[in-house]
Amino acid sequence: MSFTGSIALVGSGNVAWHLGNALVNSDVRVTQVCGRNFEKTNNLAHALNAAFESDLSNLDADVIIVCVNDDSILDVISKIPIERKVLYTSGALGLSIFEDRKNIGVLYPLQTFGDRNKSDFSQIPLLIEAKDDDFLNEINSLTSSISSKVYVVNSEQRLIYHLSAVWMNNFVNHLGSIAFEIIQQHQLNWEVLKPLIEKTTFNILNNNPIDIQTGPAKRNDLKTLALHKENLNAEQKELYIALSESIKKKHLPNGKL
Amino acid sequence: MSFTGSIALVGSGNVAWHLGNALVNSDVRVTQVCGRNFEKTNNLAHALNAAFESDLSNLDADVIIVCVNDDSILDVISKIPIERKVLYTSGALGLSIFEDRKNIGVLYPLQTFGDRNKSDFSQIPLLIEAKDDDFLNEINSLTSSISSKVYVVNSEQRLIYHLSAVWMNNFVNHLGSIAFEIIQQHQLNWEVLKPLIEKTTFNILNNNPIDIQTGPAKRNDLKTLALHKENLNAEQKELYIALSESIKKKHLPNGKL
Repeated sequence: MSFTGSIALVGSGNVAWHLGNALVNSDVRVTQVCGRNFEKTNNLAHALNAAFESDLSNLDADVIIVCVNDDSILDVISKIPIERKVLYTSGALGLSIFEDRKNIGVLYPLQTFGDRNKSDFSQIPLLIEAKDDDFLNEINSLTSSISSKVYVVNSEQRLIYHLSAVWMNNFVNHLGSIAFEIIQQHQLNWEVLKPLIEKTTFNILNNNPIDIQTGPAKRNDLKTLALHKENLNAEQKELYIALSESIKKKHLPNGKL
Repeated sequence: MSFTGSIALVGSGNVAWHLGNALVNSDVRVTQVCGRNFEKTNNLAHALNAAFESDLSNLDADVIIVCVNDDSILDVISKIPIERKVLYTSGALGLSIFEDRKNIGVLYPLQTFGDRNKSDFSQIPLLIEAKDDDFLNEINSLTSSISSKVYVVNSEQRLIYHLSAVWMNNFVNHLGSIAFEIIQQHQLNWEVLKPLIEKTTFNILNNNPIDIQTGPAKRNDLKTLALHKENLNAEQKELYIALSESIKKKHLPNGKL
């Protein structure tokens, strides 16, 4: 059963932007966009052919999707009329805190939205949850119209996916920024690293990563570890040591050295 | 000028295997393979249509490529007749320690070789170096016949590339093994993470990673950080904290909290 209702979006950041575009591209009607930042919200409303709305209590679409930071979700939802059907997009916030709402649910797109380059939303996993079974079915219809990867998970499972996503995106990206910094500091060529980065990802996608670990920490190659540390600043060195020790604990036969 | 000489390989591990196959596939003659492990060395020699050799002093090919662990390189090379032209494949070992050799050089393939799946060697960056200019030209001819990405770099530059490769491969793969472990512990589905892993890599390849950092550590979202830590074991938590603190130091306006 396909979703035929209307959607209101709350928020004008990257998640609202990507989700709004995905909905409209799948012929789902976005009728209202509500946000504090007038310019950004109005731009998004315009792009989605929706009405700009500044007052949460005026939202009257069939489903309201709240795309704001975790810290603001409770406050924002408390201002939406209690009878409305509401979804939020957080990976970490559990559903049980919304005690007084019947039609409350989650639409968590497990993807990073650090930019506004159009992405193929149909391949983005959408993790959904709802208190009410009828509402869950409605969310399922809605999300299935924009992605082929819809998963029903509970709040605990969603938190674990979010936690894993932090390791695979936030932390990996941070390692990338350190490697990039090291290459720049020495006026070397970042292009040289790219085939390795691609192969590393290919390997992680196609193996249990623990089986393919290589490198000086795993070999406990003290000479190379020392050479590397000589070429890092204090902050980089601290993290290098933490990562190397963690690899050693996992891979060396006697655990910690 | 194309390379027309013969090659001897020392070692029977993954680097020797990949390099040997790349050479033979590019019609470079591998005439000898020398190693301590009879079975593995003999298998590789057979696969490359080369002779098995157990004695380093018997190697008589035009160029001898030593593909052994950093800890063994000095010892192995000391047993090769001094007049021979020798290359080794280390990312970290500086050339200056080989004081008594004229024809000594480096062929460092900047790639991970944790498995024996055939890879497109022509796209693997080869970092080369030699004491002697004529020998460097010869290495250049040799390496250009197997890869389109040959870079002449000195020992210090090579060490920095190797160090960056540790961040982008060894450390990233270790984060992958932790995320995989977390997903398995909770009997969840690793497939759900894959589009995110692919997008993370795409982002790193196409941006300065520091510009696209996202996540609870960067936002200093204490509630989510606490929720995550509750779901990690002691070792995972230690590394989670080290990585989150490093992100905070880099991104929060007042540095450390």
